Amino acid sequence: MFQTFQESADPSQGPDRLAALRAEMVAAGLDAFLVPRADAHQGEYVADRDARLAWLTGFTGSAGFAAVLADVAGVFVDGRYRVQVRSQVADVFSPVDWPEVQLQDWLKDMLAAGKLGGGKVGFDPWLHTVDQVAKLRASLGEDAELIGSANLVDRIWQDQPAPPAGAAYPYPDALAGRSSAEKRADCAAALRTAGHDAVVLTLPDSICWLLNIRGADIARIPVVLCFAILHSDGQVDLFVDTAKMADVTLGDDVRLHGPEGFASALAAVTGRVRIDAASAPYAVEQALKQAEVCYGDDPCVMPKACKTKAEVDGSREAHLRDGAAMCEFLCWLDQQEIATLTEIDVVTALEGFRRATNALRDISFDTICGSGPNGAIVHYRVTEHSNRKLSVGDVLLVDSGGQYLDGTTDITRTVALGDVGAEPREAFTRVLQGMIAISRLRWPEGMAGRDLDAAARIPLWRAGLDYAHGTGHGVGAYLSVHEGPARLSRVSDVALRAGMILSNEPGFYREGAYGIRIENLIVVAPAPHPDGATIKSLLEFETLTYVPIDRAMIVADMLSADERDWIDSYHAKVAELIAPRLSGAAQSWLANACAPLGS
Amino acid sequence: MFQTFQESADPSQGPDRLAALRAEMVAAGLDAFLVPRADAHQGEYVADRDARLAWLTGFTGSAGFAAVLADVAGVFVDGRYRVQVRSQVADVFSPVDWPEVQLQDWLKDMLAAGKLGGGKVGFDPWLHTVDQVAKLRASLGEDAELIGSANLVDRIWQDQPAPPAGAAYPYPDALAGRSSAEKRADCAAALRTAGHDAVVLTLPDSICWLLNIRGADIARIPVVLCFAILHSDGQVDLFVDTAKMADVTLGDDVRLHGPEGFASALAAVTGRVRIDAASAPYAVEQALKQAEVCYGDDPCVMPKACKTKAEVDGSREAHLRDGAAMCEFLCWLDQQEIATLTEIDVVTALEGFRRATNALRDISFDTICGSGPNGAIVHYRVTEHSNRKLSVGDVLLVDSGGQYLDGTTDITRTVALGDVGAEPREAFTRVLQGMIAISRLRWPEGMAGRDLDAAARIPLWRAGLDYAHGTGHGVGAYLSVHEGPARLSRVSDVALRAGMILSNEPGFYREGAYGIRIENLIVVAPAPHPDGATIKSLLEFETLTYVPIDRAMIVADMLSADERDWIDSYHAKVAELIAPRLSGAAQSWLANACAPLGS
Repeated sequence: MFQTFQESADPSQGPDRLAALRAEMVAAGLDAFLVPRADAHQGEYVADRDARLAWLTGFTGSAGFAAVLADVAGVFVDGRYRVQVRSQVADVFSPVDWPEVQLQDWLKDMLAAGKLGGGKVGFDPWLHTVDQVAKLRASLGEDAELIGSANLVDRIWQDQPAPPAGAAYPYPDALAGRSSAEKRADCAAALRTAGHDAVVLTLPDSICWLLNIRGADIARIPVVLCFAILHSDGQVDLFVDTAKMADVTLGDDVRLHGPEGFASALAAVTGRVRIDAASAPYAVEQALKQAEVCYGDDPCVMPKACKTKAEVDGSREAHLRDGAAMCEFLCWLDQQEIATLTEIDVVTALEGFRRATNALRDISFDTICGSGPNGAIVHYRVTEHSNRKLSVGDVLLVDSGGQYLDGTTDITRTVALGDVGAEPREAFTRVLQGMIAISRLRWPEGMAGRDLDAAARIPLWRAGLDYAHGTGHGVGAYLSVHEGPARLSRVSDVALRAGMILSNEPGFYREGAYGIRIENLIVVAPAPHPDGATIKSLLEFETLTYVPIDRAMIVADMLSADERDWIDSYHAKVAELIAPRLSGAAQSWLANACAPLGS
Repeated sequence: MFQTFQESADPSQGPDRLAALRAEMVAAGLDAFLVPRADAHQGEYVADRDARLAWLTGFTGSAGFAAVLADVAGVFVDGRYRVQVRSQVADVFSPVDWPEVQLQDWLKDMLAAGKLGGGKVGFDPWLHTVDQVAKLRASLGEDAELIGSANLVDRIWQDQPAPPAGAAYPYPDALAGRSSAEKRADCAAALRTAGHDAVVLTLPDSICWLLNIRGADIARIPVVLCFAILHSDGQVDLFVDTAKMADVTLGDDVRLHGPEGFASALAAVTGRVRIDAASAPYAVEQALKQAEVCYGDDPCVMPKACKTKAEVDGSREAHLRDGAAMCEFLCWLDQQEIATLTEIDVVTALEGFRRATNALRDISFDTICGSGPNGAIVHYRVTEHSNRKLSVGDVLLVDSGGQYLDGTTDITRTVALGDVGAEPREAFTRVLQGMIAISRLRWPEGMAGRDLDAAARIPLWRAGLDYAHGTGHGVGAYLSVHEGPARLSRVSDVALRAGMILSNEPGFYREGAYGIRIENLIVVAPAPHPDGATIKSLLEFETLTYVPIDRAMIVADMLSADERDWIDSYHAKVAELIAPRLSGAAQSWLANACAPLGS
């Protein structure tokens, strides 16, 4: 079982650890020290060794940071974690509402309160990006001095785990669709076009994509933790625990170095060297002693987002496999005595059906299984403490996904456990209308997420409803389930390009009552050229996810003929594609689940 | 008759005038001189005296500029005017494709070609904004020196018309909904909040709004050409030809000065003085010798855009009056032998019906009347030269509006002159679907035009069609028919607020064949709070324009039930509101035009 349900928070050790950290601060001559949740790679997940924020404070959320002074220690968390943080940290820590309260303002106030105006604020330059440090330094001005420092948490963390040592393995060219040599040649050409001699790569998924490798250092995302320098001749210096690389042959153009060689290699590199200020550690910029530092995008990010035909083919197959597992799960759920089940039972069963495919490498994130009011907590993860018994009449939201060698999946289905009443069904139908609107879109190349996001909301808006998250995020090819640079969001101005895999997941959350989300993955594709069309390059979405949408939640009369046609066609295709992969019982369930609306 | 159809271009005089200008440039020691289309108020229309670009070059378009050097004279025009400019200017002028070619790049190339690197480029500092000069200066760098100069065109323009002397008149508080004193108090409070002591106002519609006056200096927009300084105590110094102000009493808090006093008043003002760099002449910034110049928005722009209840009431009445005139016109058109008519006949008849209201102060812009292929020229204005005979089977696009004391109107209807065939009707129906989508929108307060624009395009995009203009523009209250700051456009990030009047005008243009546009004016209003709504502040559009949409152009089967309901409800309301204002013949026509779809 990949997912666990223990409360990993332990507030009791916080006070001693905080005291030890403060002693180190005194020894280092620092008035404050910053403890971010991030590691040097700025990923969504971190290795145990890098879980410094959780170790120090007890707070286990996926975003946040602490700022420790002699007499106050702020734990900055966003709206998702306001309740959770209070149960996870001891009284010696002060939760701070972030981003409403900004670090610089809080620091200024606290330093001033301690009569420490102009005080020294220490930070580990490997854990903060170039942009973050520049912004913080500019906004602190004369009120505080930012000082790069050794990591003081590491100094006091006696039993800090070793760095992860998961074995790397080759990612087949047949699945990647392009060899590493081709990718390196293209990225190197982009560097030469920009007049850059090299780029420092600090994002593990960029490096794994570039080298066609995968790894096992971190749960939920199959990457190798490493750094690299890509040169404009296509050669790469890779900095990684070489013991992890035994099963990988990278060829002469990729030179392998231990991680300890990274800083000295940065110090030695010359010429015009690009870093991505949004993700590169401040330490990288500082280490480039002899180079002319240039700022620009990580050149892997865009080609990685635009999947090859082989990657899209792989994703289609992964989605059919995962869709079959989802159907077995939904069939199983349909056969249970609801009142005997808990949320953990549901999560456990679902992971079991995915494991039964014999192809599951990992789940792509901890399953969100929210019954009744828990469904309205967008970020909900069930624990033994929060675990809720299901009841007939509940709306049940299940958001889950699998990591398969041929693709990463992410799907949300919301199902009625018996009769849920009219109001949730009407809201569900509006969410569905938005999800269909995105699915049916065609648009001229050049449009970004911000141009399309509202299409998913218009049916909800008419009823005065909305959801406080984006409509979709990018998804990697057996990489991160949350992948940049494009999103379906009103804050995303990255034009959508053919091959980008995105989620399409509008929702609605009635606090204290239920949550609704319907999520398919979709891939941007050239649309057929309609007769008489004047748009030269027309794009559309191809749906990747094939799993029934609960007809018991749909108020069919609210749908237009086009929307009904979409649902019926979708279900017909689900039946056609998924039935051959199912057990007999699930085949019967599927036939019923895919019947036309109103039949 | 307000509209005229003469070709005002006269290429023949260009060479002599250009030679005279070059002689002045030599005398002034300048290597180049800039001649913009704009006047000091950066408005859409300019007085005859300010039509320097047309006088010099012959080019009469509504946007563009010339850059004159000793051996080349570029006339910069955008895509709308590429054909027109070639027929309007003599060979001594070189049309330049703008904005593809930027002025600074062209200037650098031309100065370098003439071995004039670092040359002196003269400009009239009253005709270029602070932003324009800063941007041009920064991008020219060392390659040229920008030098403020007297206007050399004025020096050679022997019979330059006098400044316009239209009489100003009070705009009734009952129509404005707020007294000038209230507006000045609010804008002054906004200045104080920003810590500013005064703001220089250079936009005539801002000043006319602030002082509740209107004027007659410029065709199509009822403003008084003037400048003003609003102080943070609510007092105003107004700089205007005092002879124009005989019929206006402004009270003690508004001090009247002749226009010649403006520059010296700027030189004398002290404290923190705001200018709007996007619209204020560079000369204004230069003249503020003793002030601390601060940059910010013209404080009148946002409150002017958010119409008062009285202004919205007035606009509703203006639209019913104008709608009745449109219906009389459409009835008349329906009764004509089509083949006997030209586009000019149509424009003339339409203005006649508006004049027959006895309330028309002006048309709000020259009517765009494009039959057949002329309809596909988005910027088309019929002249005696271009005038086209109508034919049965033509699609006819008529975009027009009136200036009434109680409101400014702007409406486009596209009608079938007989059987136009299936393809234009399908495109029309998609345009209509987009127009209905905007009309039916509700959205949470905070959304901007860029969030909503795509809703109008989605039905067109599905067929590979689009239109190369925004979906809508702001409209003034008996002021400019194109009013900022909000637009329905993917480049507009100004949040829509209650009271903003906008156009809703999607279109489709089949080059060489026909043009389609359907345009209503709409006003942003609070939406009723639906049961169970979670959006706190929900907005929607109220439609102001009530004129039938040609049912012969609609393919009813393409519409959803909601769209059919919208059209039928709209037509029922047109019949109810407009019929009582019509002649007997037009009442019969209207009853038929407003019958439900499919009946």
